[in-house]
Amino acid sequence: MSVYDLRFPTSDLLDGSDAMNPDPDYSAAYVVLDTSGPGLTGHGMTFTIGRGTEVCCAAIEAMRHCVIGQDLDALEADPGGFWRSIAGDSQLRWLGPEKGVIHLATAAVVNAVWDLFARRAGKPLWKYLSDMSAEQIVAAVDFRHISDALTRDEALTMLHGSEAGVAEREADLRANGYPAYITSAGWLGYPDDLIRSKTREALADGWDALKMKVGRDRDDDIRRTMVLRDELGPDRRLLIDANQVWDVNEAIDWTIALKGADPWWIEEPTSPDDILGHARIAQAVHPIRVATGEHCHNRIMFKQFFQSGGMDIAQIDGCRLGGVNEVIAVLLLAAKFGVPVCPHAGGIGLCQHVQHFSMFDYLRVSGRNDDRMIEYAGHLHEHFVTELEVRGGRYIAPTDAGFGLEMKIDSVRDYAFPDGAVWTARG
Amino acid sequence: MSVYDLRFPTSDLLDGSDAMNPDPDYSAAYVVLDTSGPGLTGHGMTFTIGRGTEVCCAAIEAMRHCVIGQDLDALEADPGGFWRSIAGDSQLRWLGPEKGVIHLATAAVVNAVWDLFARRAGKPLWKYLSDMSAEQIVAAVDFRHISDALTRDEALTMLHGSEAGVAEREADLRANGYPAYITSAGWLGYPDDLIRSKTREALADGWDALKMKVGRDRDDDIRRTMVLRDELGPDRRLLIDANQVWDVNEAIDWTIALKGADPWWIEEPTSPDDILGHARIAQAVHPIRVATGEHCHNRIMFKQFFQSGGMDIAQIDGCRLGGVNEVIAVLLLAAKFGVPVCPHAGGIGLCQHVQHFSMFDYLRVSGRNDDRMIEYAGHLHEHFVTELEVRGGRYIAPTDAGFGLEMKIDSVRDYAFPDGAVWTARG
Repeated sequence: MSVYDLRFPTSDLLDGSDAMNPDPDYSAAYVVLDTSGPGLTGHGMTFTIGRGTEVCCAAIEAMRHCVIGQDLDALEADPGGFWRSIAGDSQLRWLGPEKGVIHLATAAVVNAVWDLFARRAGKPLWKYLSDMSAEQIVAAVDFRHISDALTRDEALTMLHGSEAGVAEREADLRANGYPAYITSAGWLGYPDDLIRSKTREALADGWDALKMKVGRDRDDDIRRTMVLRDELGPDRRLLIDANQVWDVNEAIDWTIALKGADPWWIEEPTSPDDILGHARIAQAVHPIRVATGEHCHNRIMFKQFFQSGGMDIAQIDGCRLGGVNEVIAVLLLAAKFGVPVCPHAGGIGLCQHVQHFSMFDYLRVSGRNDDRMIEYAGHLHEHFVTELEVRGGRYIAPTDAGFGLEMKIDSVRDYAFPDGAVWTARG
Repeated sequence: MSVYDLRFPTSDLLDGSDAMNPDPDYSAAYVVLDTSGPGLTGHGMTFTIGRGTEVCCAAIEAMRHCVIGQDLDALEADPGGFWRSIAGDSQLRWLGPEKGVIHLATAAVVNAVWDLFARRAGKPLWKYLSDMSAEQIVAAVDFRHISDALTRDEALTMLHGSEAGVAEREADLRANGYPAYITSAGWLGYPDDLIRSKTREALADGWDALKMKVGRDRDDDIRRTMVLRDELGPDRRLLIDANQVWDVNEAIDWTIALKGADPWWIEEPTSPDDILGHARIAQAVHPIRVATGEHCHNRIMFKQFFQSGGMDIAQIDGCRLGGVNEVIAVLLLAAKFGVPVCPHAGGIGLCQHVQHFSMFDYLRVSGRNDDRMIEYAGHLHEHFVTELEVRGGRYIAPTDAGFGLEMKIDSVRDYAFPDGAVWTARG
C-alpha cells in the first residue's frame, strides 16, 4: 500500500467558489494497492479541499492491517465481510463511527479493492457491478442498522424485479451515455452578462440542466436566477445550491423567494446533518425538490432522510460514503423509497467515481435515468490515466477496466504536497 | 503547541468490555498549549481506544494555524468567534463537517484554550463557567443550524430565569458533590456470583445507581439483569447499555424482554446516528427511558434527538462534541426540551471533563441534579496531576484551577506510543 497527499492549487485558478467554501485547493488522499498479480494494482482516493489531506492519509495508513496480505479471491468471495472488517474495526470505529475522516479513508481503501476486482475481471466497474448476480450484490451490503427500512430479502426481490430489460438498457447506455448537468454559468460573483454568455455556450454544447450557487444576497439571487431562467427557457432544469449556509426558517423563506425562476431543486439548504430540518423545508417549498447528500455520511443517515421525506433527490458522493458496498446500500434504499439519485461530482476524481454508480443504478437497481442525472465539472481530469468522456451533456460509458481512478505518474510526482515541484515552486 | 499520542494497554487489564468494543486500549491525543504567561499552559485531549490515535494527533496538528500566535485576551473576549474559526475552517470543515476525527480534534484544541481561560482566572472550569454572565455564556455559543429550536434570545431568557438560587446550589454542590453512577458489577461475562458480590461492594461504597452491559445473549441478559435488580432492591436505578448492537426492531423486542428488571434506561440501543430509530424505540419501550449521546457528534444531531423525542437522557461526551462552546449549546437545548443530561465518562480523562459540565448545568442552566447523574469509572485517574475525587457515589467539586486534564510528566513519557517505555517493553 502506498499513500500520497496530492494537492492542486485551485484556489487561485478556479472560476468560482460557493457560499461555504471560499478557497478550496482540490486535493486527494490517493492510495495504490500492489498485488502479486502481474501489473495488477488497485487505485482509490478520497477527495478533500486542501488542509487536512494529510489527516486522511494518516487514516488510510491506519487501515494497512485490514488489507495487507489479504487474498483477493477471499475478499471477492465475501465483499460484505471485507467491508465490515474495515468499517467495523472496533478501535478505528470509535473515531466515527462511520463518519468523518475515518469513513473518507474507508472509501479510499474499499474502492481501491473494488478497482482490483474490476481490473482483474477486465471490466469497467459499472459493468463489473452490473454483471453480478442479485445474490452477489446483496452479499456486498451491510444491512446492519438499516434493516428496519430494507431487509436483505426485500433487496433481493427488488433486484430480481429489475432484471427485465437490462440488455436494452445497457445498449442504450453504450449508445447514448447517461444524462448530466453542470454549474459553468452559475458561480457566485459572475456578472449577469457572463451568466448569459456562459449559459449560451453550455446550451450550444448540449447541456440542458444548469446549476447556480445562491445564498450570499437574496435580491442578487432573485435577479441572477431570473437571468438564468430567461436564457434556459421554460423547459430546461434550473438547479440552485446554497451549500448549507441557511438555518431552517431562513432556507424556507429564501427558497420561496426564488420560486419565480422555477428551480427544479434547492440543494443543501441547511446543515447536512439536519434530517428533520430538511423534512420541514421539503414540505414548505414543495414542488421545489430538496436535494442533499454530498455530505451525508452513511447509509443510516440516508435511510432517515428517505423515511422522513427530507431528501427528494439523493446526491451521493463517491468518497463520503464508505465505498462501493455502502453506495449499493444507498442505491437500494433510494430505489425502495422512490428517490432519484443524482450524484455529487466535481472536485477531483468525483466524476470518475460516480459515473459507475449511476450506470449500475440504471442497469440493475432503479432501472431508469429519465428523472436523474450526474453532476459534471470540467477540471482536473487530465491527471487521470483513463480519459473521462462527457459529450453533449452526457457521460459516455467507460470501457477501460476498473474504476478509472489511476493518476498519471507525472501528476503524482508534481502535485505531491508539500514536496512536489508545483508546491516547491510556490515557496 | 505540543501533541502527544498516549496509549494505555487496557485491553489486557480491564475488567470488562462491551458488545461493540471488545479490546479497547484507552488512549488520548493530548495537546499542551504554551503561552508567554509565566507557567501558564493549557491542556486538552481527545479520548480514543487505540488504533487511530495518531490520526487524531494529525488533526490537532492541522489546527496549529488556528491558535498559534493568538492573543488570549482576544479569544476570551470573543469565544464564539474563536470557536467558529476552528470548527468553521473551510478546508478542514470538509473532513466532517463537525464530526468524526476533525471534531474530536476540535474538542482537544478548544478545551485546551478554555483550560487557559480558567487557569488564568484561578478557578476550576465549572466555577469559571458559572461566574460568566448570561450574555457571556450565549456569546460562546454558535447558534448556526440550531436557531429553529433555540434562538440567542431564548437562551438568554432561560439563563436569566435560572439565576435565582445559584448561591444555594453552589453551597450544596460544595457540601454534597454531584450524583454519579458506575458499571463495576455489570460487565459482560461476569458470572452471577461476581455480579452479586460486586454490587454489594458498590452499595457499601455509597453507589445507588448501577449499569449493566447487555446485547450479547437475550436469555443471559434476562437472568443477569434480574440478579442485579435482586441485589439493588426495588428503588435504586438499574441502567442497561447495548452499545449500538441492535437494529431498531430488535432493540424494541430485546428491551421489552428485559422489562422485568425495571431498567431506568436503555443506553445506545442502536446506531448513534439513527434519530428516527431512537424515536420509535423510545415510544415502544416507554416508560423505560432511551439514553444516548456518547457518539452524538454535534449540536445539530442533539437538536433533532430532542425534537423527535428519541433521546430521553442526553449522554454528552467531553470530547465528541467540539469543546466547551458546543457543550454549552447542547446543555441549553436539553434544558429547553426538558431532557436530563447524564454525561458519558470512563475511558481516560472523560470523568475529568464532564464533571465541570454537569456542575455548570446544575448551577446555571437546568438548575437541578435530582433527575441526573454523571457516569464514573475508577481507572487511569492516577495519570492526571489534579486528583479526581469521587466519594460515596458522588463527584466532589474540583477546587484546582482549570480543567484538570494536565497529565503527569512520567505518564506522558512512559505511555507515549510507540516509543514510551511501556510500549517498547511490550515489544
